[in-house]
Amino acid sequence: MAEISFGSDNHSGIHPKILEMMAAANTGHVTAYGNDPYTEKAKKLIRKHFGGQAAFYPVVNGTGANVLSLKAITASHNSIICPGSAHINTDECGAPEQHTGCKLETVETTDGKLRPEQIEQALSGRHDEHHNRPRVVSITQATEVGTCYRAEEIRELADTAHKNGLLLHMDGARIANAAAFLKVSFREITTDAGVDILSFGGTKNGMMMGESIIILNPGLDKEMKFIRKQGMQLASKMRFLSAQFLAYLTDDLWLENARHANKMARLLAEKVQNAPGIRIEWPVESNGVFARIPKPLIPKLQEVFFFYIWNEEKGIARWMCSFDTKESHVLAFAKAIRSACETYQKEN
Amino acid sequence: MAEISFGSDNHSGIHPKILEMMAAANTGHVTAYGNDPYTEKAKKLIRKHFGGQAAFYPVVNGTGANVLSLKAITASHNSIICPGSAHINTDECGAPEQHTGCKLETVETTDGKLRPEQIEQALSGRHDEHHNRPRVVSITQATEVGTCYRAEEIRELADTAHKNGLLLHMDGARIANAAAFLKVSFREITTDAGVDILSFGGTKNGMMMGESIIILNPGLDKEMKFIRKQGMQLASKMRFLSAQFLAYLTDDLWLENARHANKMARLLAEKVQNAPGIRIEWPVESNGVFARIPKPLIPKLQEVFFFYIWNEEKGIARWMCSFDTKESHVLAFAKAIRSACETYQKEN
Amino acid sequence: MAEISFGSDNHSGIHPKILEMMAAANTGHVTAYGNDPYTEKAKKLIRKHFGGQAAFYPVVNGTGANVLSLKAITASHNSIICPGSAHINTDECGAPEQHTGCKLETVETTDGKLRPEQIEQALSGRHDEHHNRPRVVSITQATEVGTCYRAEEIRELADTAHKNGLLLHMDGARIANAAAFLKVSFREITTDAGVDILSFGGTKNGMMMGESIIILNPGLDKEMKFIRKQGMQLASKMRFLSAQFLAYLTDDLWLENARHANKMARLLAEKVQNAPGIRIEWPVESNGVFARIPKPLIPKLQEVFFFYIWNEEKGIARWMCSFDTKESHVLAFAKAIRSACETYQKEN
Amino acid sequence: MAEISFGSDNHSGIHPKILEMMAAANTGHVTAYGNDPYTEKAKKLIRKHFGGQAAFYPVVNGTGANVLSLKAITASHNSIICPGSAHINTDECGAPEQHTGCKLETVETTDGKLRPEQIEQALSGRHDEHHNRPRVVSITQATEVGTCYRAEEIRELADTAHKNGLLLHMDGARIANAAAFLKVSFREITTDAGVDILSFGGTKNGMMMGESIIILNPGLDKEMKFIRKQGMQLASKMRFLSAQFLAYLTDDLWLENARHANKMARLLAEKVQNAPGIRIEWPVESNGVFARIPKPLIPKLQEVFFFYIWNEEKGIARWMCSFDTKESHVLAFAKAIRSACETYQKEN
Repeated sequence: MAEISFGSDNHSGIHPKILEMMAAANTGHVTAYGNDPYTEKAKKLIRKHFGGQAAFYPVVNGTGANVLSLKAITASHNSIICPGSAHINTDECGAPEQHTGCKLETVETTDGKLRPEQIEQALSGRHDEHHNRPRVVSITQATEVGTCYRAEEIRELADTAHKNGLLLHMDGARIANAAAFLKVSFREITTDAGVDILSFGGTKNGMMMGESIIILNPGLDKEMKFIRKQGMQLASKMRFLSAQFLAYLTDDLWLENARHANKMARLLAEKVQNAPGIRIEWPVESNGVFARIPKPLIPKLQEVFFFYIWNEEKGIARWMCSFDTKESHVLAFAKAIRSACETYQKEN
Repeated sequence: MAEISFGSDNHSGIHPKILEMMAAANTGHVTAYGNDPYTEKAKKLIRKHFGGQAAFYPVVNGTGANVLSLKAITASHNSIICPGSAHINTDECGAPEQHTGCKLETVETTDGKLRPEQIEQALSGRHDEHHNRPRVVSITQATEVGTCYRAEEIRELADTAHKNGLLLHMDGARIANAAAFLKVSFREITTDAGVDILSFGGTKNGMMMGESIIILNPGLDKEMKFIRKQGMQLASKMRFLSAQFLAYLTDDLWLENARHANKMARLLAEKVQNAPGIRIEWPVESNGVFARIPKPLIPKLQEVFFFYIWNEEKGIARWMCSFDTKESHVLAFAKAIRSACETYQKEN
Repeated sequence: MAEISFGSDNHSGIHPKILEMMAAANTGHVTAYGNDPYTEKAKKLIRKHFGGQAAFYPVVNGTGANVLSLKAITASHNSIICPGSAHINTDECGAPEQHTGCKLETVETTDGKLRPEQIEQALSGRHDEHHNRPRVVSITQATEVGTCYRAEEIRELADTAHKNGLLLHMDGARIANAAAFLKVSFREITTDAGVDILSFGGTKNGMMMGESIIILNPGLDKEMKFIRKQGMQLASKMRFLSAQFLAYLTDDLWLENARHANKMARLLAEKVQNAPGIRIEWPVESNGVFARIPKPLIPKLQEVFFFYIWNEEKGIARWMCSFDTKESHVLAFAKAIRSACETYQKEN
Repeated sequence: MAEISFGSDNHSGIHPKILEMMAAANTGHVTAYGNDPYTEKAKKLIRKHFGGQAAFYPVVNGTGANVLSLKAITASHNSIICPGSAHINTDECGAPEQHTGCKLETVETTDGKLRPEQIEQALSGRHDEHHNRPRVVSITQATEVGTCYRAEEIRELADTAHKNGLLLHMDGARIANAAAFLKVSFREITTDAGVDILSFGGTKNGMMMGESIIILNPGLDKEMKFIRKQGMQLASKMRFLSAQFLAYLTDDLWLENARHANKMARLLAEKVQNAPGIRIEWPVESNGVFARIPKPLIPKLQEVFFFYIWNEEKGIARWMCSFDTKESHVLAFAKAIRSACETYQKEN
């Protein structure tokens, strides 16, 4: 593989400041499982960012954060309303269904974003005991196709959910990229917008393993410690997870990283959008570019810089930028793409 | 807390060589989820230590290693025969039952070690459909009370299990300490002794997060990738887990760490065993000392160096040593213990 | 409610011959849980109908038959390919997902019938560990919209499944109606067509509680007794379930009942198909009629004879006939429908 | 097998009055799944017996009643405190663990009866997140060894449970036998004694399939319909289950049956208690006799009348009487036992 990949934002490593903080935490003995000063400090920082009622539970991966968030607020006969493109639906090997017992009631969207009327519609069917009882709406910020919900859109979804007795879960694997794009604080698009429970992730934005559950609705914060342990998501040497959050949330490192990745994605989109045969599929609102390209070009371009195909049938490529993607990489990749497209146009 | 705790071997941090290897792996982009050169190298090292058929699956914690090992070889109507003192029975919040659906058929032991005749006895009852069908024997090496199975003892357990159509799982959270004590290779007490599947851990011996499943019986290596992902135990930036194993298994770091921790435990036991009112409960064969002490001394001594009580009723303290426990700590702690015991004897 | 409902074929009671056989079995003591002479006889009859390798497991309801059939042949990381209209997807409160842990990979059909190319298509996507691994194809005979798979259609589905390493499950809640319509034996559309495991039901065709799992692929018949017991589907006084099957499979009672119900459905369709505003939605190949009717007529007609709406949005009514639906009921209902339609046409 | 067995009270058939009521319900069409007049009437009768707040959910077997009762009041990280002899622990193939995810925390008893101090003791251990959080106490009335809790004993258990934030579940598979022995109403030993949720069974007392969940604590009655359906315990033609309860609860049929079975057990015990080598193991307070007998006699006596061995090691036989066990059977069996014992004494 080339030094840099556009395959995923988790192909990158650890931001140096985060690794430094992990090293700084590597001194002496501390109690395991989160009863340590690093985790205490991290909890405070989280409350600063999300409000005083926010309860912070570091976990060990993103699927764990999503699944246990959902498990904490459902019974097995419930259903979870989410876009068909949701990571919980497409990329977690059925872990949400297996661990919660719930059915995912998927809704098709054009841009990865659920609309309030789609919740209403999903709720309009028969709801007797032969059908799972809807309990949760789950949205992803930024979405899996790189778009972002505005704060007021989230508020409307939350209101619609709450009005119908449902709770709102947010998969925030790329929430930093969304906040950077929207120029808002975490709090404005979560706590203040009515999100009940959040998968708060930083692994895709410079952490080694930075995933957590944040309970924003305090009524839900009862048994999460047990759920996390039984759910196999409790780390013994937790200080090394918490230390990552400390660095991440200090001096706006999260924001700096996310801004940079977003900027690189926009740059890439700008540089290739006018190439013949290219169509940018969704607005570039975070750190990924989704572009329809002539299918025969895909394998050739993948040799230049690795990337994944989002939609095989339609020939949509996904190009992800990271905190450490350099302008030079983007320009080189854009050049290769444009050049390939132009050659292809001439030959066809 | 004091600089050093005797509370648990996971109160320690990361061995410097392991952290260095993690830092060394922090360069450029690599594919996520284990398709990276570090994981490839780690797999080779594992095969060197466990034999050419060994299939290595890094996971994110010890409960995950145990639970998914068991899930891979059971159906929900099975039962798992294990000592009552097994970590899977006492300290995993019921995760084994919840995730596998199986019943744990616990057997009482005097020293944490299961005997072949206890397997036979557990199998002697009614086995119609009203009872879980036994499928796995699970043992811990070193045991939760610090004792070690000899290679031939494991072989006998494996033979008894296999003869009855069962498989043998080993929880190797402290297998390094056992190998160091027994002066054997990993292979001699696993693959060569008939173990089918192993939870191979290093977190308690100097790693930050060093847990894995090693399938030793190649017939069982079919669907583990799916089980690990759905089981929420797949790390995206896996290179940083694999790098830890690389350092751990290079130049016998694992052995050096384990030998040292074992030595510290023996030293502590030697220094306190003759103190009045003290009784070392089980032979010190790894890195923990289990000692009956006068109950009123417990809170006082816990202020000197932190430790946990293994058995509240009997007043058995557990003192765990780590790769970084220093002789000076042990001597200071031993002195405090002896002194407290002597004072107590005089006053009572 | 009127004496007769067109709401469901389970609104009917027990065929007198079946109740008589239950009464005849009510003599003296017999061993519980299936070790009784009635169950032995029923097993023989099943082998007569399905072939010598057929293993028969009476269970207590249809959801149980489906769920445990699927559980017996899947691991939790698998997926099950089925039509979106499948009962397992729409009417079992998520029990298949909850009990198997699997994801249902639903395929949209025009007439409730899955096609081999749809299996191929469902298998064409990415199949790494981030996605459930397909393991089962599940079809319903007769389908939920009353259509029937021909023997050769089932054979093709079975071949496609097997070629791809999948198994074929059939939900046979109305298999009698299908066999009656197709004029074939049970065996021709199950064992001989490559079905691996069957939910064989008779409750909708005159039994009180006549559900069972029949394993047709003998390689799968290993642990079903344990699965049934743990799955809460084992009846203690099983003789009274088996006695029902004895009556049902004697003197072609199953066929007589199914033929009659089918005939009543065809009669109803014939009588109303030309009424203004009516459109029979799918060919009437079993005991239900699915008809688009003017929506305002629905509540009025439901007062005459009760029925359910299959599709609220499109205004499709479902009219089910039973073994005891009389011609006079059908004619009265048809008359009411036609009359309402004609009035409606005039007034609109 | 002989006409009568002492193997189990579920070896008997259906009481004629119950079968008659089933036949009487076999008329015309009624809505399925419990929306029928028979179920409505049964609900009223249940409220008459258990109090106005009692919510009645017929299910299809006893394991289902127990498991879904427990599932309704637990999360998977909970534990359930019960005697080691509990049916949920010994005879349900691990269904409670598999379906609830909970751990059974078993307590050893001398006579099948849990004591309040044993609950306190079970709660005295560590209760951090590494251990299942206790949530339910489950007792069986009459117990699996035939003893009965007095109303005040149940009250004390309920108080102890409630005081500690736990709920009290009763497995009432033989509650009729207990009520008959204690000369109390159902209500006195359930609702009025603080039981929160009850598995109310009649299959062992003359019904064909008479199992149900009765929620006595109204705060718990929220989602049971969904739990029952997803739990595969919802019968479609429910009228035939409800009709059984109608007959059972009319004119004290339940009491008559239970009194008779109890009387037969006492008669058997009286007739054999002085036979040489016999020891009645527990007071005969319901319809079973548990007797230690010389082991070599077991197979011979099993040929006379079938019965099971309760404890193989100690040679304890279990002799169960049913509503239809006749005095002549008992006397014949007692004679055979005494005679065998006497011969054995002479020869040894």
